[in-house]
Amino acid sequence: MIANDQLAQWDRENFFHPSTHLAQFDRGEAPQRIITGGEGSHIIDRDGNRLLDGFAGLYCVNAGYGRKEITEAIAKQADELAYFHSYAGHGTEASITLSKMVMDRAPEGMARVYFGLGGSDANETNIKLVWYYNNIRGLPEKKKIISRWRGYHGSGLMSGSLTGLELFHKKFDLPLSNIVHTEAPFYYRRPEADMSEADFTAYLIRELEALIEREGPETIAAFIGEPVLGTGGIVPPPEGYWEGVQEVLARHDILMIADEVITGFGRLGSMFGSDHYGIKPDLITIAKGLTSAYAPLSGSIVGQRMWDVLCQGTDEHGVFGHGWTYSAHPIGAAAGVANLKLIDELGLVENATTVGAHLRRAMTEAVGDHVNVGEVRGEGMLCAVELTSDRATRASFDPMGSVAPKVVAAMLKRGVIARAMPQADMLGFAPPLCLTTEEADHIAAVTAESLKEVLG
Amino acid sequence: MIANDQLAQWDRENFFHPSTHLAQFDRGEAPQRIITGGEGSHIIDRDGNRLLDGFAGLYCVNAGYGRKEITEAIAKQADELAYFHSYAGHGTEASITLSKMVMDRAPEGMARVYFGLGGSDANETNIKLVWYYNNIRGLPEKKKIISRWRGYHGSGLMSGSLTGLELFHKKFDLPLSNIVHTEAPFYYRRPEADMSEADFTAYLIRELEALIEREGPETIAAFIGEPVLGTGGIVPPPEGYWEGVQEVLARHDILMIADEVITGFGRLGSMFGSDHYGIKPDLITIAKGLTSAYAPLSGSIVGQRMWDVLCQGTDEHGVFGHGWTYSAHPIGAAAGVANLKLIDELGLVENATTVGAHLRRAMTEAVGDHVNVGEVRGEGMLCAVELTSDRATRASFDPMGSVAPKVVAAMLKRGVIARAMPQADMLGFAPPLCLTTEEADHIAAVTAESLKEVLG
Repeated sequence: MIANDQLAQWDRENFFHPSTHLAQFDRGEAPQRIITGGEGSHIIDRDGNRLLDGFAGLYCVNAGYGRKEITEAIAKQADELAYFHSYAGHGTEASITLSKMVMDRAPEGMARVYFGLGGSDANETNIKLVWYYNNIRGLPEKKKIISRWRGYHGSGLMSGSLTGLELFHKKFDLPLSNIVHTEAPFYYRRPEADMSEADFTAYLIRELEALIEREGPETIAAFIGEPVLGTGGIVPPPEGYWEGVQEVLARHDILMIADEVITGFGRLGSMFGSDHYGIKPDLITIAKGLTSAYAPLSGSIVGQRMWDVLCQGTDEHGVFGHGWTYSAHPIGAAAGVANLKLIDELGLVENATTVGAHLRRAMTEAVGDHVNVGEVRGEGMLCAVELTSDRATRASFDPMGSVAPKVVAAMLKRGVIARAMPQADMLGFAPPLCLTTEEADHIAAVTAESLKEVLG
Repeated sequence: MIANDQLAQWDRENFFHPSTHLAQFDRGEAPQRIITGGEGSHIIDRDGNRLLDGFAGLYCVNAGYGRKEITEAIAKQADELAYFHSYAGHGTEASITLSKMVMDRAPEGMARVYFGLGGSDANETNIKLVWYYNNIRGLPEKKKIISRWRGYHGSGLMSGSLTGLELFHKKFDLPLSNIVHTEAPFYYRRPEADMSEADFTAYLIRELEALIEREGPETIAAFIGEPVLGTGGIVPPPEGYWEGVQEVLARHDILMIADEVITGFGRLGSMFGSDHYGIKPDLITIAKGLTSAYAPLSGSIVGQRMWDVLCQGTDEHGVFGHGWTYSAHPIGAAAGVANLKLIDELGLVENATTVGAHLRRAMTEAVGDHVNVGEVRGEGMLCAVELTSDRATRASFDPMGSVAPKVVAAMLKRGVIARAMPQADMLGFAPPLCLTTEEADHIAAVTAESLKEVLG
């Protein structure tokens, strides 16, 4: 390890960190933390702090830290062949094996997997595929994409446009044209307090239908949504939501893109969120859980009806003009193969169901009665605590969120990482899928103590 | 190794390869090749073929294959900590060290480096930075980007729009609005045969100036260009080009983005192409050579005048809403640190100059007099052979290229990988920077034999 002070200074002087207050970091006002190791659900920083990571990095280290099965697969692949491209029919044993493993696990009706690097670029690929698809079908006007407010689909120009959070639009001139947003399926924030869950779902479906009519169904190519809203608040859908949405989409010849960057490969206690909720997607976005973040790798799983048209397109127009140098990178592919095996061997999908349910029970017991807790919700190994200044009216402390960061800071002092979700006062939890019930209890206890410290 | 037939079948049935004729691959008509190892400038496939890789993957394996210094750094990092995010001031020893190493090598006037995954997403980041910059400056109308025909800047929606090749636009509805293209600085394809290089440069600058006037300088935010045109044909700029371009940009308050994905870290025989040609960029795109492709990593190097405004922006609007989960991934960062050290230790920047010059000399001797060779050109460790049906008129065989693929196939039979550049009949060479003079001679000899086989 290089002397601490020097690293700290290099960091401030050279490193443009993502999602950071640049000026404060530059001036030394915003914190820095250098991570040196990890094991199971814990990470270790260079000051020797051992932190229970209640957010698995960014919902991504599903298998937990320090898994030799994955790191040895990376080392072995690096030693054999760190890189070759996958253009024009090239591949490696790892990338081909992973494509087979992904398709074996994918929901019914899916045909092929294209590999990218992260969720944002996979959603870029998806939009390119959707536009190409409708061009080949002779429907050049059918190009708009419907996304939801509070959806998160990346922070690129297109993927950030799909995202329905102002933080990712403001001052970046997003969303781009051709992207329209519909209501968030967020029952706690329903427009009228006395709406039942079923009423709320009916309202959402009416709003979706009205949007499609307004824009013209002949102009709408696809709908994109996370099975469970992620960064927008960790919100499971209200009853009957996906059934209703899909009925509308089918009626208007609109493709369904399931963004499973968070939910894919076990987080909901099912291999895919699409299976969990009966979604029959045309495209599935995958990333995070695919490799448990041990190496960058994402993917677009393409359904059969799209694949047939893509093949027709190359017969008509030649080589498909899309690819990243690092598509199906061997290191990522090797990490993916080892990770998917390990998820099976350790029974992590089942653990997400059981320990996830335990975490929500423990959290409800620990903070559910607090005067500033609006609700505790989640699904599988996802949990959110919604904070409110008034339980009766469900009012927000601050629409952009100022209380949750204080609670998260109080938790960090106690050695537990939670996330203050953007544009809201919510605590988010997405621990590694290997979380134990003892660790879940500890997260709940620390949340209660910290909530008390900040809000009394 | 899994039984060969099974892997081959899995590949056809599951894997959506980039830049591939999907229907032919699906039907088993297009070739597949499974790569199993590599050493120096050679790769090895599962059939035991040992191929001299004259294109370094996709201009990216600059340090050569099988470098223990890099693979051991990857293994060590994986063992210590495969992943933590770099949001909100988090980092690792590897990512911070690499930020320092990149900035130490960057041209004068650069302030910080943001890390991404591949060149396409780094160019996305650049456009977001440019738009944010002019919003903070109170110039919301100044947003268009000028790129060049035959430029290559990625294949996403924005990055593919910047790219000036029809293959990446057709049927994908690209370019997006706000992107305008100017003439390619491609002297061989000058509009009038009797133009001198200086005349041609003057013509290009007039065309650029006219485009800016047509669009309105108050609407133009930035100009993006590769120091040497890459995928568009491996074309060094004509004399005085960058000087002239920069004079125009400065006069109209237009930012300069140097896309150094290919040229960064040594390929031209200089650490950066910007230094090679006296370019003073506001943003530099880096990828490929940063890690020699051993792990995915890209970056945007931000100049001081932009950085100051970005900092002002976060003081006014809070956290910078941009980031990838895998920004500054520890595995990529560790690969980058080891790779940049190795490039210095092995003197690969100098080797790019000397062996690159040797390669062009050898190529000129071997094929320069062939009746169908229009020119042999290049810079550093880059070389292109332009094919023509008529040397006198410089006529193309086929604007989309049909002869070069045959020559490349003939070379592959002889164990040498070259690239048929898109939308042209050109052979492209971008070998690892560790190429030896013997290997360079062999590439030239095989090119001559193969050219003879195909064209007589």
